[in-house]
Order: sequence, then structure tokens, then C-alpha cells
Amino acid sequence: MSSQTPHPTLLIPGPIEFDDAVLQSMAHYAESHVGPGFVKTFGETLTLVRKLFQSTSPTAQPFVISGSGTLGWDVVASNLIEKGEDALVLHTGYFADSFATCLETYGANATQLKAPIGERPSFEEIEQALKEKSYKIITITHVDTSTGVLSDIKRVAEIVRRVSPDTLVVVDGVCSVGCEEIAFDAWDLDVVLTASQKAIGCPPGLSILMMSGRAIDRFKSRKTPPASYYSSIANWLPIMQNYENLKPSYFATPPTQLVHALHTTLSQITSRPLAERFAIHSQASDRVKAAVAEIGLKQLASKPEDQAHAMTAIWLPEGLAPPDVLPGLLKRGVIFAGGLHKEAATKYIRFGHMGVSVTDPARKDVDNAIAALKEVVIEAKQAKGL
Amino acid sequence: MSSQTPHPTLLIPGPIEFDDAVLQSMAHYAESHVGPGFVKTFGETLTLVRKLFQSTSPTAQPFVISGSGTLGWDVVASNLIEKGEDALVLHTGYFADSFATCLETYGANATQLKAPIGERPSFEEIEQALKEKSYKIITITHVDTSTGVLSDIKRVAEIVRRVSPDTLVVVDGVCSVGCEEIAFDAWDLDVVLTASQKAIGCPPGLSILMMSGRAIDRFKSRKTPPASYYSSIANWLPIMQNYENLKPSYFATPPTQLVHALHTTLSQITSRPLAERFAIHSQASDRVKAAVAEIGLKQLASKPEDQAHAMTAIWLPEGLAPPDVLPGLLKRGVIFAGGLHKEAATKYIRFGHMGVSVTDPARKDVDNAIAALKEVVIEAKQAKGL
Repeated sequence: MSSQTPHPTLLIPGPIEFDDAVLQSMAHYAESHVGPGFVKTFGETLTLVRKLFQSTSPTAQPFVISGSGTLGWDVVASNLIEKGEDALVLHTGYFADSFATCLETYGANATQLKAPIGERPSFEEIEQALKEKSYKIITITHVDTSTGVLSDIKRVAEIVRRVSPDTLVVVDGVCSVGCEEIAFDAWDLDVVLTASQKAIGCPPGLSILMMSGRAIDRFKSRKTPPASYYSSIANWLPIMQNYENLKPSYFATPPTQLVHALHTTLSQITSRPLAERFAIHSQASDRVKAAVAEIGLKQLASKPEDQAHAMTAIWLPEGLAPPDVLPGLLKRGVIFAGGLHKEAATKYIRFGHMGVSVTDPARKDVDNAIAALKEVVIEAKQAKGL
Repeated sequence: MSSQTPHPTLLIPGPIEFDDAVLQSMAHYAESHVGPGFVKTFGETLTLVRKLFQSTSPTAQPFVISGSGTLGWDVVASNLIEKGEDALVLHTGYFADSFATCLETYGANATQLKAPIGERPSFEEIEQALKEKSYKIITITHVDTSTGVLSDIKRVAEIVRRVSPDTLVVVDGVCSVGCEEIAFDAWDLDVVLTASQKAIGCPPGLSILMMSGRAIDRFKSRKTPPASYYSSIANWLPIMQNYENLKPSYFATPPTQLVHALHTTLSQITSRPLAERFAIHSQASDRVKAAVAEIGLKQLASKPEDQAHAMTAIWLPEGLAPPDVLPGLLKRGVIFAGGLHKEAATKYIRFGHMGVSVTDPARKDVDNAIAALKEVVIEAKQAKGL
């Protein structure tokens, strides 16, 4: 039984519903950011981030920084590529456009490899692009929150290592870390950037990154200084290393309460096999996708292998827009999100199914949401005479 | 009676002790960042930031962004000055060095006007410097957290307007906003940047800025695009304007729980006259400074008019270092901070006296800390045979 004030169930693709213990950690009493208690909490949290990424490589480095997930793009763009260098951006929705803009802000040339809405660039196109030009980094949105399209980052990393081994593989895992499988070392990834408020199950306000030794080496061999101050790896690397070694250290005041909440949720997540967590998300996703088909609706991600397991982006019936269905869902205690992809935002809705809403067997969030969606679509069609 | 777990009293210059209601806001249940409930909370919070700065100018603009206070420097350096332009940095401690480094990261030329530790540049030196070169911005650390030196930002702004009227007056108010008087419009300031975790009394994780219409116009007339993505005013300005107009808007997910906590603390702060709040901090500061003198210790800020009202940086007796006194203070339930100024860090301690520790009449935090300090200094001197 949750101790939280009764409220509609938040089933958007982040922020998500919180576990009680995580929320209680947010209300932790005041601590010095350089005192032994908090230093231990932060140090352990960084070690838990390694576990979350299934990484044991001593040269890999986790970062936990005060900021939104967006900040992770700046960390990449201002540290791992230099002015005039080339980045290949695989486009599966809204977030690739933004990442490309961020890269260009810091002077990189971003070449986008685009796919139609709901699809992803093919492996052949990716291989071809990598052969045509020498890219310093390739960026992949693991799950694009605007479309629900899942990318096969393991396979892309394999192609990169074979065709262009020096290209850093950068994964935007904001909507995937904590629910989609990621084997950071085994798949030979260089960066996974994410945020606290999606499948990790922590409130928003933390930018979280995992970097390979190769990425750190690339940073260290820059010809020019980092192009940002707050996002500079030069400023953060010693801080992260010191905290994990339980030494207090100061660059900017860490968000102590959010770090406590992250510690709590990562302790919960890593207390059970990650494979089990991924399987639970996969099963819940299958249930949602089957129900969507049963209602007669289609997903933006048309092919099953391209469909994310933590969210479903659903085309509304012709003639309906998000304002025709979201209020009816809210009346039934469920909050979904509207569309986000700029070419189609008014034509679809997004259903997030991750974290405690799927892992806590006492919660019926997904079943309730499916039932509500069925009723609301019928109701909305009737109201519009469709 | 606080509902918080018993803990030592945190009296460092931020983070500080929290009010129970503020901490409870940190544990707010999950909400959509674009749902009407949170949009209202965020919109009202921005309006409360205006009140905090005593600003009624419709062209002035508050910003509340996920990040540490440090991020505010990037916002200034990447938006309000361009590559090759000049900034005059008034130096009163550690934080001016860092702000100068941040400005230079984005290509500005930072000229530091330095004062000896514990002092501040004179008005004559400032006027002279402004006459010698055309500076796009001048930066002033209102209270340098490393030294406890207070700057007279009202007087500096007057000099700037008289001598170099187009120079933007940028105040680092991280350790001053909420306890030192700031009349943003009346003093004709252009930027005050601050953070949530000091005298504002909210947990860390929010970068808060107030900008004048003049600063926004300067941004809009840039010849080059903003030099950062996450810190770009181009990205944040429409978001802040939309939220304050109660329209949902998305650039990066805001830290919903921290915004709730900020709303709570700003509602408390602005529910009483700000002049009263400043007076209470001033009185508490006087008590601390008198006690420090009585114990026979000196402050880093030697002149009374240079002394901050929210913190006191105290030279330890010759032969004592922070590790000789901080454990004894902790044993008595009080946490002070060590030194931070790189030239003197091992020779002094810092006592923060702000927020609920001074405004809540039920708390005896300052008196207890003074008593503990007296005992500990005697004890430590005896232990060292001094």
C-alpha cells in the first residue's frame, strides 16, 4: 500500500510513478555535500551505476551530474568531438534532431541518417555511411521517446567496430536505461547517457553518463580545451573518481537529495538480476502492444523488432487528436502523453510502461490503463461520430 | 517540532537546514512536467522568483533550470558576451577565479580586479578599470562563499551606470539571495544568478537567474549563436515565458520535485516582508561576529562593511587546522565547513547562519553553535599545547 497522496497514475514516458522509498529519500535531512555520510552515498551510487550498465571495466567511468538528461548531449558535444569534426547521427525521431543541434552548437558537423517516422535507418545504410566518411562519433537514440522506436545498439556497435573502429559509439539511453538490455562492456559501447526520471525510477534532475576508457582517452587527447565549463569532463572526472574513492571533492554542489533517491532506486534495481527486470518490461510491453492491436490501433513503430519495451506510441484513429482522448483517460485516473514528433504531434499519444508500474506486482497500472484506453477510444469515436 | 530524523545541525554556507514543509515537497508524487498541476506550480514559482528579487519590471525574466549554481556562470558566459569581448571580474575569493575560467572557456577575455584575501576591490579601482577599457559585462560575487566577503553591489552598479552605462552588471548571488538585500529593478542590475541550496532554503539542484530587459536585449542582438546548448537562453526563454503564462512547454524535463520545494520555500519567504528577513539575518550575523571576537578569533573579512550576513569565515588560531576543530564541533551536534580559498584553505573554517536556522525562533542552532565553537577552540588549543 503506497503512502503517497492519492493521484492519477502517471504513465507517460517519464517522469514515471515512484516507489515510496525513493520518494522518502528525496526528503532526506540536510547533509554536507563533502561530509562522510553523503560522500559514501554518492560513492556507492556511482558504483551502482556501473552495475546498472553491467560494467566491470576499471577504465570505464560513471558520471552523475545535476541537470536534465539534455545536459548529457552537451557533455558529449563539448568533450568528445572538436570543432569541424564529423558526427553521424542516426535519426529515429525528435531527439536526434536536438542532439544534432547540440553537436553543431559546439562546432561539430552533424550528418543525420534519417528514417521515415516509426522506422530506423537500416544496418546497410549505417555501414555505407560509415564507409563514406571518417566520423569521430556516431550517435544512436536507443529508444526515441517521441516515436517509441527501439534501435539495435549492439548490432550498430558491431558494425562500427568492424567498419570504423575508432568512431566512438554514443547511445542516448534516456528512455532505455533500466528497462532495455544494455551490456556496456560486452557490447563495446563508448557512451551511454541517460536521465534519472524514466526507467531508473528516480525524480528528474540528474544527468547520468557511462563512458568507456576509449572515450576518456579521446577526451584526454583533445587538441583544444573542452568547449563548455559546466559540462566539462575536465571538471567532473576528478570529482567522480574522488567520490567513488570516498574522498570529498568540490566542483559544483551535487543535488544531495536526488543522489539519495538514485541510490535507493539503483539499490532496488540491482538487488535482483537485471535480466529479470528486462523480461518484466518486455512482458508488460507485449501486453500493451497486443491490447493496442485488439483496439484496432496502430503503433508509430510499425515493425515488432523496432518497438521499445518501456513505452508505446499509438496513432489515434483518423479524426481524433490527443485532446479528444487524454481528458477521458484522466477521468479514469490515467495520464498518458500527447505526441512529440514535430511532423505528427497532433495525431498520436504515448503510453509509458516502466518502473514500479510494471515491476510492482501489487500495482495494476498497466491493466487499468489498457481498460481505460479501450473505453476512451470507443467514447471519443462516438462523440465525433466516427 | 521537526519531523526529520535527528541529525547534526548543518551550519555550512550551503546546503542548509530545511524546513519540514520544504522537505515534504521534495517527496511530491509523480506528475507530468507538462500537466496542468505542475505547469501551475512552475509558473507560480517563476512569479515568486520575481518577488524574491523585488522586481516588477515586465521585461525582467526569471529562469529556473535543472543544475548546480555553477551552471549560472555558463548561462552568462555563453549568452551575454561573445568571443573576444571583455569581461571585468571583481575578485573577492575562489568563486571569481572560477567565473573567470568559465568566461574564458566560451572565449571572452576576463580581466580580474583582485583584492587581498578578506578584502574587496575599492570603488576607485573599479571606476578606474571601467574607464580604461570597454567591458561588455562586469561580474561581482555578492558574497564569496570562500571568504565571507560581502560586496556592495548597489554602489558598484551605480558606478557602472555612471562610467560605463552599457556594461551589464552581473551578480553571483549564490550565497546572498534570500538573506542579503537585493533590489533588482531599483539597483538597475542586469543578472543575478543563484542556486537553491543556500539562503533560499531549498535542496541543491536548481540554477536560478534573474535577468533584466537590457540583458535579454543584449542576448537578442548577439552576432553569433549562443555558445552552449543546455545553457542557451534561446532554448530556455520561451519555456520560462510559457510556464509563467501557464502554457506547457518542453525543452528539457524540469526537476519537478525540486520546483515544488522551491515553490514552498519561496511562498514562505515572500509571505513576510523581505526587509524583516534581511534584518533577522543581520542580527544573527552580528551575534556570531561578536562571539567570534569574544573567543579571540578573527574573520577573513576584516572590515565590518565587507562582512556577509549569512556566513562567517573564521581564521583558526595559529597552529590549528580545520581537522583540529571540526570533529569536536560534530561531537556537539554542529557541522561547520573547512576553508575553500586555495591560498588559505587549511587555516580557517566557515560557519553558515542562514535560513530556518536563524528565522525559526524555535531553533537554537546559532546559539548552540556559538557555545560549541567556544568549547572546541579551548579544547583544541589545549590538545595542541597552544
